[in-house]
Amino acid sequence: MRIRKTAIIGVGLIGASFALALRHNGICTEIDGSGRTEDNLLRAREAGIIDHYFMDHARACKDADLVVLATPVGCFEGIMSEIRDVLKKGTIITDVGSTKGEIVEILEREIPEGVSFVGAHPIAGSDRSGIETASADLFNDAICIITPTESSRHESLKTIGELWKQIGARVIMMPPDEHDRIFSSVSHVPHITAYAIIKTLSDINPSYINMSGQGFRDTTRIAMSSPEMWIDVCRSNRKNIMEHLDILIKNLESIKRLIENNDYDQLRSLLNDAKELRESIE
Amino acid sequence: MRIRKTAIIGVGLIGASFALALRHNGICTEIDGSGRTEDNLLRAREAGIIDHYFMDHARACKDADLVVLATPVGCFEGIMSEIRDVLKKGTIITDVGSTKGEIVEILEREIPEGVSFVGAHPIAGSDRSGIETASADLFNDAICIITPTESSRHESLKTIGELWKQIGARVIMMPPDEHDRIFSSVSHVPHITAYAIIKTLSDINPSYINMSGQGFRDTTRIAMSSPEMWIDVCRSNRKNIMEHLDILIKNLESIKRLIENNDYDQLRSLLNDAKELRESIE
Repeated sequence: MRIRKTAIIGVGLIGASFALALRHNGICTEIDGSGRTEDNLLRAREAGIIDHYFMDHARACKDADLVVLATPVGCFEGIMSEIRDVLKKGTIITDVGSTKGEIVEILEREIPEGVSFVGAHPIAGSDRSGIETASADLFNDAICIITPTESSRHESLKTIGELWKQIGARVIMMPPDEHDRIFSSVSHVPHITAYAIIKTLSDINPSYINMSGQGFRDTTRIAMSSPEMWIDVCRSNRKNIMEHLDILIKNLESIKRLIENNDYDQLRSLLNDAKELRESIE
Repeated sequence: MRIRKTAIIGVGLIGASFALALRHNGICTEIDGSGRTEDNLLRAREAGIIDHYFMDHARACKDADLVVLATPVGCFEGIMSEIRDVLKKGTIITDVGSTKGEIVEILEREIPEGVSFVGAHPIAGSDRSGIETASADLFNDAICIITPTESSRHESLKTIGELWKQIGARVIMMPPDEHDRIFSSVSHVPHITAYAIIKTLSDINPSYINMSGQGFRDTTRIAMSSPEMWIDVCRSNRKNIMEHLDILIKNLESIKRLIENNDYDQLRSLLNDAKELRESIE
């Protein structure tokens, strides 16, 4: 597949890695970027990640065949209203956001006639944001979820699917709502919990953190992720996250009760089951 | 420092690594081991980790200058009653358990006249238990907490402290109760939470685990630790763990409420503070 021009809106870890992967696989001739922070865009251009940069999203999208939304998902609606008038017919808009249901609904509503949208979510990333961590290999062997709806154009779905495959990802298709339910449980709630573990330590005595070992570091690594990104995730996957937080709270309460009642047989069986499920993905 | 004979009771990851570190640093002439599983002890002897093995703890401890308790902490009291009659005068007993308050109290009560006890807890380990993961370097640059009490003998404290320093650990002394409060917050509650995250996913839909990314894997890695060991930790640090689980539950409830009320400014500030504290140990 060849694309003449791609616009990356938001040149952070994911946007920059996607640009590098396109280049590395010879998929795209010209890649332009736009964003909020000129210094970051300048460094991205100097590093050869993008060819040109613009502080104005619409200018970056002019004549683009592919537009990739790679900012926090809360910015997508505003960006669409800025770029919709310059998009040419046949352009495909896609995204790399961590939530899909609400986002896909908004974008499908906002795209102009003749432009198509395909939602995507590569399961890759790092607690470190920014282009310094970016790599053409980031999506190699990663899962990329693509979320078709009734409004999706078959040709555009095929193009975006092939594109992710070409840069090394394993593509899985599922409806946006199923995506959000799954990722609330395997990603959003675990992220929130990592922040909550640190907040709890801080309530007890923040200086205790200096005594932590590798287990604590691993468990809370994702609490160094971008709060801005996670606020947007909480906002746009609110219902699932609230429901799943309730289940987690209920489980912590019942573990506490087992300890309180010295019911260690029950506790052992809970820990054994959890260990077994976790080991299934080793 | 030179020790003639050491007995390692419980030749798992920590016990075996301690034996290897003693050898590697030329500290001990003879190292014997005892445990429950003959096959494991046999492999430890074949791997040169221990010189002789016994299924009977008392036989392993005969003539030992140093006895290291390296089983789950719940076994310590039973082991003491098995070995107390064979211990010679001047022997130092130490341990590597993850909890200290109750354990130190029991052991100080149970040691015979002329034998001294020093509690220790090296902050090292892995989700993988067993001698295959053991290494002479495991404690290199790790913190080792030593927990003196009013009954501790100055000479024995000094010996155990120097021994840990010689095998590369940074020694910190603190009272057993302070240890338990700190490690409830930086280790015990985070471990329980990792199991609870998996249990929650399992309640929602266990097959979703196949969609998990690196963040989930890191956050829940410690849920592959030995349930047996963690049951003992819960039992012997019950009060702190229950208190700290309550604080965690309260924090998760208030995060849920912030999402429910769309109070994202408050949530942002909570996430930012947590991120900052976590980054202090990078």
